[in-house]
Amino acid sequence: MYNLLKGKRGIIFGALDNKSIAWKVAERAHKEGAKFTLTNTSVAIRFGQIDELAEKCGAEVIAADATNIKDLEHVFERSMEVLGGKIDFVLHSIGMSLNVRKKRVYNDLDYSYLNKTLDISAISFHKVLQVAHKSDAINKWGSVVALSYIAAQRTLYGYNDMADAKSLLESIARSFGYIYGRQRKIRVNTISQSPTPTTAGSGIKDLAGLMDFTERMSPLGNATADECADYCIVMFSDLTKKVTMQNLFHDGGFSNMGMSLKAMSMYNKSLEDTDDID
Amino acid sequence: MYNLLKGKRGIIFGALDNKSIAWKVAERAHKEGAKFTLTNTSVAIRFGQIDELAEKCGAEVIAADATNIKDLEHVFERSMEVLGGKIDFVLHSIGMSLNVRKKRVYNDLDYSYLNKTLDISAISFHKVLQVAHKSDAINKWGSVVALSYIAAQRTLYGYNDMADAKSLLESIARSFGYIYGRQRKIRVNTISQSPTPTTAGSGIKDLAGLMDFTERMSPLGNATADECADYCIVMFSDLTKKVTMQNLFHDGGFSNMGMSLKAMSMYNKSLEDTDDID
Amino acid sequence: MYNLLKGKRGIIFGALDNKSIAWKVAERAHKEGAKFTLTNTSVAIRFGQIDELAEKCGAEVIAADATNIKDLEHVFERSMEVLGGKIDFVLHSIGMSLNVRKKRVYNDLDYSYLNKTLDISAISFHKVLQVAHKSDAINKWGSVVALSYIAAQRTLYGYNDMADAKSLLESIARSFGYIYGRQRKIRVNTISQSPTPTTAGSGIKDLAGLMDFTERMSPLGNATADECADYCIVMFSDLTKKVTMQNLFHDGGFSNMGMSLKAMSMYNKSLEDTDDID
Amino acid sequence: MYNLLKGKRGIIFGALDNKSIAWKVAERAHKEGAKFTLTNTSVAIRFGQIDELAEKCGAEVIAADATNIKDLEHVFERSMEVLGGKIDFVLHSIGMSLNVRKKRVYNDLDYSYLNKTLDISAISFHKVLQVAHKSDAINKWGSVVALSYIAAQRTLYGYNDMADAKSLLESIARSFGYIYGRQRKIRVNTISQSPTPTTAGSGIKDLAGLMDFTERMSPLGNATADECADYCIVMFSDLTKKVTMQNLFHDGGFSNMGMSLKAMSMYNKSLEDTDDID
Repeated sequence: MYNLLKGKRGIIFGALDNKSIAWKVAERAHKEGAKFTLTNTSVAIRFGQIDELAEKCGAEVIAADATNIKDLEHVFERSMEVLGGKIDFVLHSIGMSLNVRKKRVYNDLDYSYLNKTLDISAISFHKVLQVAHKSDAINKWGSVVALSYIAAQRTLYGYNDMADAKSLLESIARSFGYIYGRQRKIRVNTISQSPTPTTAGSGIKDLAGLMDFTERMSPLGNATADECADYCIVMFSDLTKKVTMQNLFHDGGFSNMGMSLKAMSMYNKSLEDTDDID
Repeated sequence: MYNLLKGKRGIIFGALDNKSIAWKVAERAHKEGAKFTLTNTSVAIRFGQIDELAEKCGAEVIAADATNIKDLEHVFERSMEVLGGKIDFVLHSIGMSLNVRKKRVYNDLDYSYLNKTLDISAISFHKVLQVAHKSDAINKWGSVVALSYIAAQRTLYGYNDMADAKSLLESIARSFGYIYGRQRKIRVNTISQSPTPTTAGSGIKDLAGLMDFTERMSPLGNATADECADYCIVMFSDLTKKVTMQNLFHDGGFSNMGMSLKAMSMYNKSLEDTDDID
Repeated sequence: MYNLLKGKRGIIFGALDNKSIAWKVAERAHKEGAKFTLTNTSVAIRFGQIDELAEKCGAEVIAADATNIKDLEHVFERSMEVLGGKIDFVLHSIGMSLNVRKKRVYNDLDYSYLNKTLDISAISFHKVLQVAHKSDAINKWGSVVALSYIAAQRTLYGYNDMADAKSLLESIARSFGYIYGRQRKIRVNTISQSPTPTTAGSGIKDLAGLMDFTERMSPLGNATADECADYCIVMFSDLTKKVTMQNLFHDGGFSNMGMSLKAMSMYNKSLEDTDDID
Repeated sequence: MYNLLKGKRGIIFGALDNKSIAWKVAERAHKEGAKFTLTNTSVAIRFGQIDELAEKCGAEVIAADATNIKDLEHVFERSMEVLGGKIDFVLHSIGMSLNVRKKRVYNDLDYSYLNKTLDISAISFHKVLQVAHKSDAINKWGSVVALSYIAAQRTLYGYNDMADAKSLLESIARSFGYIYGRQRKIRVNTISQSPTPTTAGSGIKDLAGLMDFTERMSPLGNATADECADYCIVMFSDLTKKVTMQNLFHDGGFSNMGMSLKAMSMYNKSLEDTDDID
């Protein structure tokens, strides 16, 4: 619509189906004139609809496990080959917890699952950055974004070890952002998005209730996946060149709300009807 | 109980009646071996029960308008005279909004009321500090605490211009804390307390509903006025000498919660019963 | 360049000369297809070069004291008249401290000056918002931005009562952002910009030394006024609709740095050469 | 001195020699009337002076690898046996990075070393908590503290993957603090201490320069290990019962400073003498 990414080359990690934020980012990046590759695990490629997206955007799909260095090296090499040059933007939209899936609560974590949660959801981001850095695969003034969630700052019942993974992810963005900024003028940020009903997020407890609460708490309501894609585009564009090491809340105002009229009204209604819940 | 303030001299601003946090601080400071004066406005002294507290603690009451420099000079002079030396600790527990009282909502503020809110609730803290500094009235390693509220960081429906006053208050604590620390090793902090059912706080909208919500959100429940007094004692003691310019949350964990099981359960109950509230 | 503001109407407060951030925002908004009015005090209009800017951008200049309600009402009325409809974006770039100018240090503030600092630098923002709100002058999904500085969070030697003003400003953005968001889907944010050598900022102590330090601390270096203008454009565009109540650091990464190699090297050099400075 | 921990039972992880913060905490806890056990790895026990400390405090030393569940189970069982009941306080003062030791910079991390860094420095804290929780080893209103560093929020050159470990550590404190608070009224906090010249910390680059900088930036100067011990005592006492899920800065004010007169003077001195360092 604006040609904000005209001539830019990117890599998008984590599109699964048309509910994915990464999917929306791909669609928007395409409209803004970018060329990019799409990558996800073989399993996700098989069970998702990424090929449909690839066709629509004229993008090649590259299978890769984002925790595997060799795979990541291939992603960057192949992307530069296909796109005809170094990369300008990268989206990291990857997260998974076996503890959540297997219903291991936070005071009964399986530590091998925890290691996997951290490796897939956070350390993979370091690996992406380190591989890119070593192979000098990102252009000066390039932009790297990872998707995060406010659980990195505040505890939410049921979000489990994903909270710790998001804290680690945001720390990696700062730590590597310093190095990449100083050495090559490349920026690294995280976007902390409203709860979003993606296929991946569906394992989170009480998501419907939580989304109603955050919708009423946020003066602008929850941010959608489409709106998140718009924000990612902005962060990939040349208009945000000096923004780095930040965690950017994209949440309709939720993060700075203590209590809204709408949420309080709903809560109070229940209070009046209830003797007690404990 | 522990003699934590043995031999220390203090000034306590803002005790009104036995629901006041300042009242509880006075009682606790007395038990911990401190001597101190009590100060409040003439009106508050007349309508409150501060004389009862003064008798119990062997403290002199000094009438003062905390926005008036002459009055504050008198408070420090008289306190040093009565207590026999320079001051070791000061509590600032003062806040008032005419906009709240007169039901002027935040998008229809009366600006002369706003000026009063800021003067009484925040600038008075600067005045206390500046008067103390100019008259060299606080001992090395002394400690100054002001009471704040999380509205300084996050918007709460109905808290109105008091939120802005608390932000200003916390900024003053940092700004003056730097000067007082560098020059005289005196620390300045704010304690951000759970919503507390004091006489002064009773003007806040929906306080009962809010307190139920924060009680269920906070893993340890809301902090009481008595518990806040304990925390103030700790901050006045010699065990926290290097803590300065901080805003310390004393809230049962509320400030770092995104959503708790108990609050979500109560909220969801209402959600199920409701078509919509908007 | 991208038509990001095509068809949008705006009001820009605070352009003085071509070093002003507001000046750069006007130039960029013009290039992005916006129409807008410019406003500043009569004195600033007389002594600055705003007429030159107005001509370049086809903008009308409206004299107004941003602390005066009548003047602000006139600004909005006249702007809607001239621009042919309701407003889509507003920039607030206003700040002044008489305490700084008159060299009253922070432990010797003149309180009538402090009131002026707060009124001009922070409360004026509330007045702009309240006037706009009462006259229903801003379109749904409109965007309001005020410029801030990291002194709102961290104390800087010599920044004086402007630190408190910036804290208050950011609080007002949150408090009014909640109301404007809930009622009319209008967003309110602050951008916390690197130290910038504007004419207004020239009163700040040790600005050259500070800017060298922040340049070396920030992995991307200090953000310039031009780059800040780009970021403002993004915040006015339709691509950031769900970002509200935020303070957005635009500072090359400074805000999340503890110590950089470059700043440490410079600092250490001095350390080696020095017996002591105290 | 105050009997603040009279009758309380504790476990202290991480004392090595008399420069350790954990060592100072043990000495202070002993003076305050607590009984406790000391634990560290077999290697640390062999090479450190922990037996000397144990004798002084009448404490048993229990060898344990804090990443090993069986070892931790033994620590809690044996401690309850020796001390005659459930535990009231726990100190976690553990951190180590092989990447730092082996001089692997942050853009060339060895990922098996990173896993070790996270396991030893952060996940061990979860293991301590989970083991304690499962064996119901901590009394109601007990207090658990882990030592952290501001690198969890802001990037410091050379601190490497320890920054990410500290972020993860602080997240674990929040996540588990919620559960332990809700279920058993036990609080979990981190104390973010000034840079401290311990034996363990000696691997950090440029520590002397950094400590000079933070000393001059902090209005009260760097906090010492002894002062940190005082603050830990306070957090273990009954006077801070409603403080949980917090990261408490104990740093002489450093965390809220942007620039001090003293640090700027030193920096400027170097600036004047220098053509350029880059």
